[in-house]
Amino acid sequence: MSLNGKEVSFTSSDASNEKITAAKMPYKSYRPRSVSTCSTDSCSSASLSEDDIPVRSKIQQNSSGFSDFCIKDIRLKDFGRREIEFAEQEMPGLMSLRKQVMENKPLRGAKIIGCTPITAPTAVLIETLGSLGAELRWCACNIYSTQNEVGAALAEAGFPIFAWRGESVDDFWWCIEKCFEGKNWKPNMILDDGGDATNFCQAKYPSIFKNLIGIVEESTTGIHRLYKLLKAEKLLMPAININNCVTKTKFDNRYSCRESVIVSLKKCTDLMFGAKQIVLCGYGEVGKGCCQSLKGLGCIIYVTEIDPICALQACMDGFKVVKLNEVIRQVDIVITATGNKNVVVREHMDKMKSGCIVCCMSYCHNEIDVAALRTPELKWEKVRSQVDHIR
Amino acid sequence: MSLNGKEVSFTSSDASNEKITAAKMPYKSYRPRSVSTCSTDSCSSASLSEDDIPVRSKIQQNSSGFSDFCIKDIRLKDFGRREIEFAEQEMPGLMSLRKQVMENKPLRGAKIIGCTPITAPTAVLIETLGSLGAELRWCACNIYSTQNEVGAALAEAGFPIFAWRGESVDDFWWCIEKCFEGKNWKPNMILDDGGDATNFCQAKYPSIFKNLIGIVEESTTGIHRLYKLLKAEKLLMPAININNCVTKTKFDNRYSCRESVIVSLKKCTDLMFGAKQIVLCGYGEVGKGCCQSLKGLGCIIYVTEIDPICALQACMDGFKVVKLNEVIRQVDIVITATGNKNVVVREHMDKMKSGCIVCCMSYCHNEIDVAALRTPELKWEKVRSQVDHIR
Amino acid sequence: MSLNGKEVSFTSSDASNEKITAAKMPYKSYRPRSVSTCSTDSCSSASLSEDDIPVRSKIQQNSSGFSDFCIKDIRLKDFGRREIEFAEQEMPGLMSLRKQVMENKPLRGAKIIGCTPITAPTAVLIETLGSLGAELRWCACNIYSTQNEVGAALAEAGFPIFAWRGESVDDFWWCIEKCFEGKNWKPNMILDDGGDATNFCQAKYPSIFKNLIGIVEESTTGIHRLYKLLKAEKLLMPAININNCVTKTKFDNRYSCRESVIVSLKKCTDLMFGAKQIVLCGYGEVGKGCCQSLKGLGCIIYVTEIDPICALQACMDGFKVVKLNEVIRQVDIVITATGNKNVVVREHMDKMKSGCIVCCMSYCHNEIDVAALRTPELKWEKVRSQVDHIR
Amino acid sequence: MSLNGKEVSFTSSDASNEKITAAKMPYKSYRPRSVSTCSTDSCSSASLSEDDIPVRSKIQQNSSGFSDFCIKDIRLKDFGRREIEFAEQEMPGLMSLRKQVMENKPLRGAKIIGCTPITAPTAVLIETLGSLGAELRWCACNIYSTQNEVGAALAEAGFPIFAWRGESVDDFWWCIEKCFEGKNWKPNMILDDGGDATNFCQAKYPSIFKNLIGIVEESTTGIHRLYKLLKAEKLLMPAININNCVTKTKFDNRYSCRESVIVSLKKCTDLMFGAKQIVLCGYGEVGKGCCQSLKGLGCIIYVTEIDPICALQACMDGFKVVKLNEVIRQVDIVITATGNKNVVVREHMDKMKSGCIVCCMSYCHNEIDVAALRTPELKWEKVRSQVDHIR
Repeated sequence: MSLNGKEVSFTSSDASNEKITAAKMPYKSYRPRSVSTCSTDSCSSASLSEDDIPVRSKIQQNSSGFSDFCIKDIRLKDFGRREIEFAEQEMPGLMSLRKQVMENKPLRGAKIIGCTPITAPTAVLIETLGSLGAELRWCACNIYSTQNEVGAALAEAGFPIFAWRGESVDDFWWCIEKCFEGKNWKPNMILDDGGDATNFCQAKYPSIFKNLIGIVEESTTGIHRLYKLLKAEKLLMPAININNCVTKTKFDNRYSCRESVIVSLKKCTDLMFGAKQIVLCGYGEVGKGCCQSLKGLGCIIYVTEIDPICALQACMDGFKVVKLNEVIRQVDIVITATGNKNVVVREHMDKMKSGCIVCCMSYCHNEIDVAALRTPELKWEKVRSQVDHIR
Repeated sequence: MSLNGKEVSFTSSDASNEKITAAKMPYKSYRPRSVSTCSTDSCSSASLSEDDIPVRSKIQQNSSGFSDFCIKDIRLKDFGRREIEFAEQEMPGLMSLRKQVMENKPLRGAKIIGCTPITAPTAVLIETLGSLGAELRWCACNIYSTQNEVGAALAEAGFPIFAWRGESVDDFWWCIEKCFEGKNWKPNMILDDGGDATNFCQAKYPSIFKNLIGIVEESTTGIHRLYKLLKAEKLLMPAININNCVTKTKFDNRYSCRESVIVSLKKCTDLMFGAKQIVLCGYGEVGKGCCQSLKGLGCIIYVTEIDPICALQACMDGFKVVKLNEVIRQVDIVITATGNKNVVVREHMDKMKSGCIVCCMSYCHNEIDVAALRTPELKWEKVRSQVDHIR
Repeated sequence: MSLNGKEVSFTSSDASNEKITAAKMPYKSYRPRSVSTCSTDSCSSASLSEDDIPVRSKIQQNSSGFSDFCIKDIRLKDFGRREIEFAEQEMPGLMSLRKQVMENKPLRGAKIIGCTPITAPTAVLIETLGSLGAELRWCACNIYSTQNEVGAALAEAGFPIFAWRGESVDDFWWCIEKCFEGKNWKPNMILDDGGDATNFCQAKYPSIFKNLIGIVEESTTGIHRLYKLLKAEKLLMPAININNCVTKTKFDNRYSCRESVIVSLKKCTDLMFGAKQIVLCGYGEVGKGCCQSLKGLGCIIYVTEIDPICALQACMDGFKVVKLNEVIRQVDIVITATGNKNVVVREHMDKMKSGCIVCCMSYCHNEIDVAALRTPELKWEKVRSQVDHIR
Repeated sequence: MSLNGKEVSFTSSDASNEKITAAKMPYKSYRPRSVSTCSTDSCSSASLSEDDIPVRSKIQQNSSGFSDFCIKDIRLKDFGRREIEFAEQEMPGLMSLRKQVMENKPLRGAKIIGCTPITAPTAVLIETLGSLGAELRWCACNIYSTQNEVGAALAEAGFPIFAWRGESVDDFWWCIEKCFEGKNWKPNMILDDGGDATNFCQAKYPSIFKNLIGIVEESTTGIHRLYKLLKAEKLLMPAININNCVTKTKFDNRYSCRESVIVSLKKCTDLMFGAKQIVLCGYGEVGKGCCQSLKGLGCIIYVTEIDPICALQACMDGFKVVKLNEVIRQVDIVITATGNKNVVVREHMDKMKSGCIVCCMSYCHNEIDVAALRTPELKWEKVRSQVDHIR
């Protein structure tokens, strides 16, 4: 079967969902989720014989006898601790905060429900909050994003963590509920990423909700939900929009993607970047970051952009601004970073040359219309973890 | 135990040898050996139950009944074929050569013994030679460098391949011998990488040696050996020094390392490059390539260099040229690319800050004096594949 | 005489004022004022014998007999026209606007008083306004910033221009007044740069002021004045703050300075940039632009910055962030782009090495404390136009 | 008249010759000749009333009464001395050599005839040779390349200099002869740039020629002449080929042009580089240098190249390699750096868009076929010094 006799290889998670996750940037931390995932996997498979007992049925207990958590496998704790230690070295701000104010316990009295990816960097945040006096219970905001070894290390350290990689949807809500249901536990703050804990709280625990001192929300989705609440006059407490703070928009987006675009594409495809022709759809912070590092590796870059200011910036930065159709037949790689849906559609994909790589750097699942490739005449072949070959 | 209370984490293969291989560049192809390795491993462990039968005792047979080969596991053939297909896309020169002259079989009569890494790119070379009419038998030039899935794909395609990842030294020489011992096989050329096949031929098969039409040698080591033969008037046939050709020195060294330094360090350490202080020892082609991509990712780079022209180039390229001792206390990463031994010694390592990463980009095993860290007061901990933490 | 036996050469206009104008960027256009100036000078001196008649006493008349203007020398008109034509090629936006709406004369009825530098780019603006139907009278906002040849070309084209290079302060206000005093002239808009025309209007022509339809103001100074008026409830009409628009802050500051820092320093000093150590004080848009081009020419760059976000950006862009005192003894060039006063003071200058170049890229006259160098033991020698050597 | 209704503005010296000199790089020093020239001109015209006495008829005497020289105007000496002092700061190698070995006078006995451009940098060389003990007499190798103020400073310092800007051809040879005709002067070395002094010596002073200890030659032309002599067995003494030394090919060509391409184009045209489309013909050292700095200023760059290795390097450095005809209609600037003739011909120029700038960065006068534009239907207009507008 063939798509005009051409092949389009790109990254997809698995046949059952439409997300493109492989080359997708972790929008929350500088660390490619895929890399974390990979580490976990190889470690698990190498050092532990996997059992098939459902996680929620396992006996959960750390070396101190503490058992108020639910994670994949406590035996991964040492590996997870080393991962956290690596992350600590990259997070001098939080580490220095610990040293400076640890003794005063400025967060004493804070009872925080956290709902974020459980990765090494968030573990550094969790342990910092703890060392400053906060009490907390934590779950994952995404069924795929937990590093099991990090969960184990946190559980070993005595944190009530409810998360594992590959939760079912039912598991997902069960974990969130566990964060609300602690013994003598009256949470007064939510640190959310996506708004699920916040919404759950409002729906299921209205008495807790109305007594919250505050909410911190990071994602665009979560922020939209909060604005809805605000409009409906149901947002009763201060909510901090972390999503728009300068250290996220300027740093997380730009500087993180500058590195992760390289690593993710390299990991998935082993291609050499030098002399590759690339079209970058979108010249916002993410696009700017990607262009910078790809330029540094000798790529020939085109940019598509509908915002006139961003388009002008692309020009002034030395990138030719084009329409996607003008270059789609010649490029080796298409990267989307617009935040809009259907930026790359079947019509574009039909014109791509064989082996063209398509990758999504933004948070939108539907920026590339992958569903349009699920047609009978096309054959999907999984060639690597998170990479499909379509012809 | 402690090294002045500091930690030096860097890459080492395993306790039994002194080589630093993790962040070390594949000097022969653009593809980090470590990455290949990893792919192989995870694939093997995921999809096949490993048996412990020694490779040489296994029954070796492909789907056509052909059995003149010795590889790890023929079942890896499909995975290997996809890897080769990926590589083909990156090697338009060879692929175009196949098309242009395939029918004329210009290599008819060539009987080649090959001794190189068995990776996807070399598979493209092997299959090109075959399609142009050459006969060949091939083994690995290094006990670690075989991608087992690529060996399987080549065996499936009918090539007499003798190589697997993790050969013993005895296996290594057995494989080379198998390349000489084919049925009705009168090899007349050697394509060597390191000189082992050439030396073996001269010592064990003098009658073949004296009838060789020619030798191709890629590595510095192999070239040195050929010059010795030449001096002793024992080099009886033309030998082509691939090592010094411009497409190797200018491209392989510079442009490959420009990419692999990023990927290898990222893979091993997950660190963020932006704002990291790095000292690059040596500003030859490898050093120039590394500096370019690291600069593109926002690193602050210092260079050490003893050659005045290269030092001047580093200056003119905007890198401060220093002595290693001037910056050793402040840098986050030390990268060596000099080709000399003992560039980074214990004295330097004692001064590094905690968590400083040390990595070797050149071919020399002893550029970093790792042996000097094998002292009783230092504790080595393996934290990831090919990464040790020393404190 | 000596400053600790060292020499500090930098750019200064002349002994009678404290401004550093040579290497200072034109904050209003992409074109270094110094270059324009130079062109003018050499042209004048080469092709015309300078007379010493005061400009206001000259007979002013163009080839059509029109005489409602006051400029240096109408004979410069052809040279000025070519300069304007050059500028037109660089200003496709305005040129395209002319074509698109010229026939509709959408600015019919607009009676504009303009007070800006009279340069080739502003001439393109002036002629565009005219071609769209506006009536206008124009003067200079700065006694130094007029290109006499451009004034001549505009006068020849029939525009009432009142400006020349080297006006006295009395001339300056006389020229502004001439813009208000046209025959049958009821101005209804002001296009201002610095606020002088606006303030003059409010003070001297209150009846015009209260009937103004609107004001456009570009400079920071002028904006401050408008806010004062607003606070005093005397700003009776809409005023557009051009100063803060994104095409100024992002483009004019960053991309213009990226080029002008190179050209201005090169013009003044003939130095080679490669391998020069430079400290850039301030990493705002101007600093970012300067760093980018200087890095592209192989400079080794340090940054000083007090804003934490900008400092972090400098780090992530690969520039070492330091305190000025840490590097002042070693750098070859000091560039200020902070917008603050006394960033470089005598104490720093006493530590600089001989021949260190000091240059100001921002609009502030007192960013470098030049006055502190007017001490008896220091000898100033003018070595080139706008460059002094101090020892 | 018109060239397909288009305009091609580029740099030409004057109507009487076909050389393009404005944007042409000084291949001998890092300093754009045009800039020097300009400084001289404006200084002369500003501070001195030019007399029309032929230089050779002037009374030549410095403040010490020394008169064995022939220069434009001794009154320029102070200005020239400052220019030399500027250059000294940029030439730490020679300056440090002076300090180290000045006392030993290692060049005692050297009697050197020099024939080079007389610029500030060569003055530093001349004075260094003198301070190390050499005797010398010096003339210009080019009728245009003398900085008169530098000649004056050298004459004031007691050096026998015979050179001025704008020599006639007769003057040129008279000056060379003066270098051979000193009192009690037995030259034993020639430092040549172009081979004119060497050839003159061989033809007119055979007795001096055969006793020469050695020759140093810098230019390609001069080297060709020496090879001819060698072939004819007339090269009786060692001759050093400076032209091919690494510090010239790698540094002078690459790093100097990296800066001078920017400054020269800016000076001639005032254009903004950001977002300009540029085609660079030739990716040798000069081309590489130009591309680097133009890329740093945000240009969109195409490369034409016939050498496969250089073409591959251009690709790997991120520049699209094209044929000139593919991009000639869209580019804003055409830069030649091939060293071949007729790289840009009338056919290309007919296709360029209006206002396209054409500039030659190599040493070849005929790289751009300017003569082909001297046709009746084209009107040449000199718009600035060294810039013509053709339509």
